[in-house]
Amino acid sequence: MTGVGRFITFEGGEGAGKSTNVRMLCKAIKALGYSVVTTREPGGSPGAEEIRRLLVEGATDRWDPVSEALLHFAARRDHVEQVIRPALQRGDWVISDRFTDSTMAYQGYGHGMARESIEALQSVTIGSLKPDLTLILDLPVELGLKRAGGRDNQETRYERMADGFHQRLRDGFLDIAAREPDRCVVIDAKRALSAVKSAIRKTVAQRLSVPLT
Amino acid sequence: MTGVGRFITFEGGEGAGKSTNVRMLCKAIKALGYSVVTTREPGGSPGAEEIRRLLVEGATDRWDPVSEALLHFAARRDHVEQVIRPALQRGDWVISDRFTDSTMAYQGYGHGMARESIEALQSVTIGSLKPDLTLILDLPVELGLKRAGGRDNQETRYERMADGFHQRLRDGFLDIAAREPDRCVVIDAKRALSAVKSAIRKTVAQRLSVPLT
Repeated sequence: MTGVGRFITFEGGEGAGKSTNVRMLCKAIKALGYSVVTTREPGGSPGAEEIRRLLVEGATDRWDPVSEALLHFAARRDHVEQVIRPALQRGDWVISDRFTDSTMAYQGYGHGMARESIEALQSVTIGSLKPDLTLILDLPVELGLKRAGGRDNQETRYERMADGFHQRLRDGFLDIAAREPDRCVVIDAKRALSAVKSAIRKTVAQRLSVPLT
Repeated sequence: MTGVGRFITFEGGEGAGKSTNVRMLCKAIKALGYSVVTTREPGGSPGAEEIRRLLVEGATDRWDPVSEALLHFAARRDHVEQVIRPALQRGDWVISDRFTDSTMAYQGYGHGMARESIEALQSVTIGSLKPDLTLILDLPVELGLKRAGGRDNQETRYERMADGFHQRLRDGFLDIAAREPDRCVVIDAKRALSAVKSAIRKTVAQRLSVPLT
């Protein structure tokens, strides 16, 4: 089946279950006969993955919030131009683990960078490109960090930031959802995975008019 | 001697003699009793030097102009916050081999990125910080590339770009100088080094009111 590609993003703090649910949703959309590209940020293209290494490893204070946002947008530009736009132009669906909302949540709400500055970078970097649907996986900070801490992983720079940071992130994502209700849906991710999966399928079916049950 | 720090930048295409003249001017200003920090872009701080490697090596088309500008500004933010602002606050003089005008020349005039986009990135990244004096070393493209080509150097990604690109760069730097005559002075760099040195000393003496002869 071919058609107009749709762009879905998953957002949320550490340990919210984004990557698991990206895989689950990809399988479900493919079962409907669509081509699906799954990807992630920071990274998602060879150039952006090189920039990712500067962001997810090393000391928590190695970059100030503005340098960090610029690096995220440099990686995002490469990712969008090399992977996301070409896929959407082919009519594929794209499902990304994180996108621009993460920059607003982490560098904006988390580290205090001005909203207008982030919006200016967004406008230069990706113009008017927006996800058709953003699923914000929400759960209490302590539960997310506990789940994330169970992983065998070198990429712990963000997880190691102080708890107050993670609470600002969670509140930030909820505020982003409240500001853009047409694009964003908050999914209660503290439930069992089967309940989360079912909520995601139902939301995608309703918002994007596909027969997922 | 202590006093108000001054910020001087050198700009120009490949092989214009920027690094040689940065060293010469540093020596001359130090001889007046000032503390001087010399630096360069992209790079100039440990974080920015890591970003530099992504910019000066590899295929000429590895980044699109917008990704490239974002990487330059990410490096510049780190450089400004870690090195330039602290030095100026101490009252030191700062002399940098390249700064923001290079992004406007290379990604703007050279690769066609919109002026307003570059100005938006500049505003987010460095606010109102501006050099007190910018010396634009100007020489014909073929002479600059010949001089640059004589170096033993891995960092040739920009040198390898097509000739039309280098002509747009030269014209771009001259246009930047014409737009901001209070900040920028064009130095004819095709002359012998002694004549270039003398013109630079005279310009700095006049513009920044120091007794360089």
